[in-house]
Amino acid sequence: MATESTLPGEIGFTTSDASLSALLEHLHAIEDLSALMALAEWDQQTYMPRGAGEVRMYQATTLQGIIHEHLTDPRLGALLDKLESEATQKHFSDADRGLLRKARRSYDHATRLPRELVEELTRVTSASFEAWLNARAKNDFALFAPWLQRTVTLQREVADRIGYTETRYDALLDEYEPGLTASKVEQLFAPVRAISTTMLQRIQDSHHTIDASCLQGSFATDKQQRLCEQVLRVMDYDITHGGLARSEHPFTTSFGAPFDVRLTTRYNEQYLPMSVMAVMHEAGHGLYEQGISPALVRTPLASGASLGIHESQSRLWENAIGRSYAFWQGQYGLLRENFPAHFNNVPLETYTRALNVVQPSLIRVEADEVTYNLHIIIRFELEKALVNGNLAVESLPEQWNARYQEYLGIKPDNDVEGVLQDMHWSAGFGYFPTYTLGNLYAAQIYRKLRRDFPDFDERLASGDPGFVLNWLHNNLHQYGATYLPEELITRATGEAPNPAYFADYLTKKFEQIYDLPKA
Amino acid sequence: MATESTLPGEIGFTTSDASLSALLEHLHAIEDLSALMALAEWDQQTYMPRGAGEVRMYQATTLQGIIHEHLTDPRLGALLDKLESEATQKHFSDADRGLLRKARRSYDHATRLPRELVEELTRVTSASFEAWLNARAKNDFALFAPWLQRTVTLQREVADRIGYTETRYDALLDEYEPGLTASKVEQLFAPVRAISTTMLQRIQDSHHTIDASCLQGSFATDKQQRLCEQVLRVMDYDITHGGLARSEHPFTTSFGAPFDVRLTTRYNEQYLPMSVMAVMHEAGHGLYEQGISPALVRTPLASGASLGIHESQSRLWENAIGRSYAFWQGQYGLLRENFPAHFNNVPLETYTRALNVVQPSLIRVEADEVTYNLHIIIRFELEKALVNGNLAVESLPEQWNARYQEYLGIKPDNDVEGVLQDMHWSAGFGYFPTYTLGNLYAAQIYRKLRRDFPDFDERLASGDPGFVLNWLHNNLHQYGATYLPEELITRATGEAPNPAYFADYLTKKFEQIYDLPKA
Repeated sequence: MATESTLPGEIGFTTSDASLSALLEHLHAIEDLSALMALAEWDQQTYMPRGAGEVRMYQATTLQGIIHEHLTDPRLGALLDKLESEATQKHFSDADRGLLRKARRSYDHATRLPRELVEELTRVTSASFEAWLNARAKNDFALFAPWLQRTVTLQREVADRIGYTETRYDALLDEYEPGLTASKVEQLFAPVRAISTTMLQRIQDSHHTIDASCLQGSFATDKQQRLCEQVLRVMDYDITHGGLARSEHPFTTSFGAPFDVRLTTRYNEQYLPMSVMAVMHEAGHGLYEQGISPALVRTPLASGASLGIHESQSRLWENAIGRSYAFWQGQYGLLRENFPAHFNNVPLETYTRALNVVQPSLIRVEADEVTYNLHIIIRFELEKALVNGNLAVESLPEQWNARYQEYLGIKPDNDVEGVLQDMHWSAGFGYFPTYTLGNLYAAQIYRKLRRDFPDFDERLASGDPGFVLNWLHNNLHQYGATYLPEELITRATGEAPNPAYFADYLTKKFEQIYDLPKA
Repeated sequence: MATESTLPGEIGFTTSDASLSALLEHLHAIEDLSALMALAEWDQQTYMPRGAGEVRMYQATTLQGIIHEHLTDPRLGALLDKLESEATQKHFSDADRGLLRKARRSYDHATRLPRELVEELTRVTSASFEAWLNARAKNDFALFAPWLQRTVTLQREVADRIGYTETRYDALLDEYEPGLTASKVEQLFAPVRAISTTMLQRIQDSHHTIDASCLQGSFATDKQQRLCEQVLRVMDYDITHGGLARSEHPFTTSFGAPFDVRLTTRYNEQYLPMSVMAVMHEAGHGLYEQGISPALVRTPLASGASLGIHESQSRLWENAIGRSYAFWQGQYGLLRENFPAHFNNVPLETYTRALNVVQPSLIRVEADEVTYNLHIIIRFELEKALVNGNLAVESLPEQWNARYQEYLGIKPDNDVEGVLQDMHWSAGFGYFPTYTLGNLYAAQIYRKLRRDFPDFDERLASGDPGFVLNWLHNNLHQYGATYLPEELITRATGEAPNPAYFADYLTKKFEQIYDLPKA
């Protein structure tokens, strides 16, 4: 568990340096406490009894206050100043540099936001979430609008205090995807919008349809759970450093990665993919955190490089692999073993096509791979306009509906199916783009994998996707948050993030799924 | 959740007093953090993956250090000094006084034990536990003896630093049963030894035997779990403020009583009482903590008055109620509903007699109600002799075996069945007597209940034991740790702890179970 000095080139910290050791010691404590905070949140979503919410809130607030004290400790600031001034003379490892970067970032953020602002954010976020619930229940955007306005005002203040070079939105985005700006996102997203619209049009023009009824049926929860555990074993998710629990919404969390990385899922007895695809998605996140080098444990580097990179791992496993014919060639026996009466009469190809039905819909979380990113682009454009100052909160539903009509060709009948469907804006802005970034990174990684393994499909079909995990581990996972996302993608794939790979992926995959005439 | 001032006579704190409010605020933080520590421990015993032990140890150590800082904060000491000097002039509620007592106690203990001693205790306890595991595996007491010797030395130092009036052992005992001394325990235990020996002799002389084979069979775990949940509902255990999980050893823990109080149990598919009786035992603990007044939440009074009082609640529900004919008259339908093939042919009386077989055994945790306390008395006598200086560690196995021969008429063949059977001495001394104190308190409470409810058995047999819980709540549970155990027992039963009630209970119960000729 001790983080030891390493040879040049290996992953690890230069513990022979006294200041770095002191920094590590300080950060270890923060990470230990943050892990316990994450445990409290995991428990809240899984096993905590309903009536314990208020007392848990007090516990979390107390712990959060202590973490904040550690994060803003002037001794931490002094250590960072000293180390940064030495960084040019001394030989620091990549991990040392990554650690300094991450520690500086969290120290600056914690010290730049005054306590009153942080408390106000907590209060408004909580009240705004309640207002969103209420507005959704009553299908009345006006009940949510004043809270959304306060959130806009507060998030602008946060951005101003944290600082940015181009636009305010960049400061918020940078929280989730360090190094990225709104203008870079625009460049990345423009071709995504184009290919999504094109592919949707081609599919609709083809009038080809897919029968997905084989995904419906009667699937007992205990059997589904067994199947999920089997799929996790196939993926080499390590149960001695993890676990699978139930929650209302599936998620992955770590309490000291790579040693304790847990997943949750949910079950729908009528619809099998609800659990299985969620488990493959969450396992993508989980494998990432389980694959972080143990040398990084108890430091801020023992996490994903960014939310976008994290999402690339979940999407790669859920979509590129988990919705592929090749993967299920190797695993269809598990479906038939657990649900023989149901799947013995369903050809494999019927099943994998059913997993890939394309259908424009109003609800993001139900969207397919072709239309999903259009949902995200709409949110990105709107929240950017809210934060950077061009869009009034009152115009949001109208703008939302107009964009759905324009991008997806359908329009919500009401705001529950529209602007009120996501809870995210009750908490702030800058998070949504990471979903589509994840898809772009995943496509680029997938393309590199297929380059490195020309027999990719055959290997997958043989039943053991271990070669994929092994590649991901060596090229991405082990580094944790050592590198910024762009650098990590460049190191792993030989190229900076490039949306062309996503366009290739989408075109090739759905031309085949929908048997499209070549464009 | 705010602890508000109350009318005289009600349970609550005088929050109008600024110093008391400051004390409460300080203690709230400590309780919040202690609750998260308890959550981390619960998780470790239930859902934590095997490979996370080391990283969890770091997390717990960090949090423990922060709790220790709060406990030894000189501002806390100054507040306590001020409040104690005012206590005679001001009108303080019982809860105020209880709070001062508990806070003073933990402050003194934390400040009187130097950090090096606490760390040494942690190290030796951990190493001693490993040595015990190893010694037990190899049936070699000599491997454990040096660690036991170090524990004796350290525990003596702890006692000397904490302070005591009669003997060192008192200081250790007082940790678990405040206000009690070894000499008082001796007075309480002497009649217990006498009645236990007498009843055992009478049963053996009668040559009556009980057939307990109906407890063996094939009991599927999911059915057992359902039965346990049904029994919990019968007992009015509140699942909206609790939960039942699996662990290797059953236990109860709270993270902010009375709002989050959780139980665990274990299952043996061949032996039904393993789960059911453990659940009734743990629910006894759980009902106690769920019954604490919400006005005491987030303070050290939101816990049991002592381990002995806590154990009285678990033993009352497990033994006096859970092994009674009357209780199962009301609930036997649940057994038959879940295991019809098994229990439809077992008469109720056969089942409840089987739950009460008396058989001297070498292993404490398998002991019946008649012989159980003899195991405890042996341990009490031996650990008292170790701490107060008369007994050498090397002589322990010999002394152990001699006492088993004398008290129970049987003798271990080896130390695994003897002195190495319990892990407790790897952690220290003073804990064991609380088990028997629990039995004594339980008998006294049980007798008072039967006095207050002359139709006790009929009520129980009708299927709803709510009247018992209601009485316990009003007379014991709601006060939490406001009163010392002796005062609490006196308030609830009208009399100081008196072992005669246990003697009455044992005599009456086992004369009937074993159909004994009157003595």
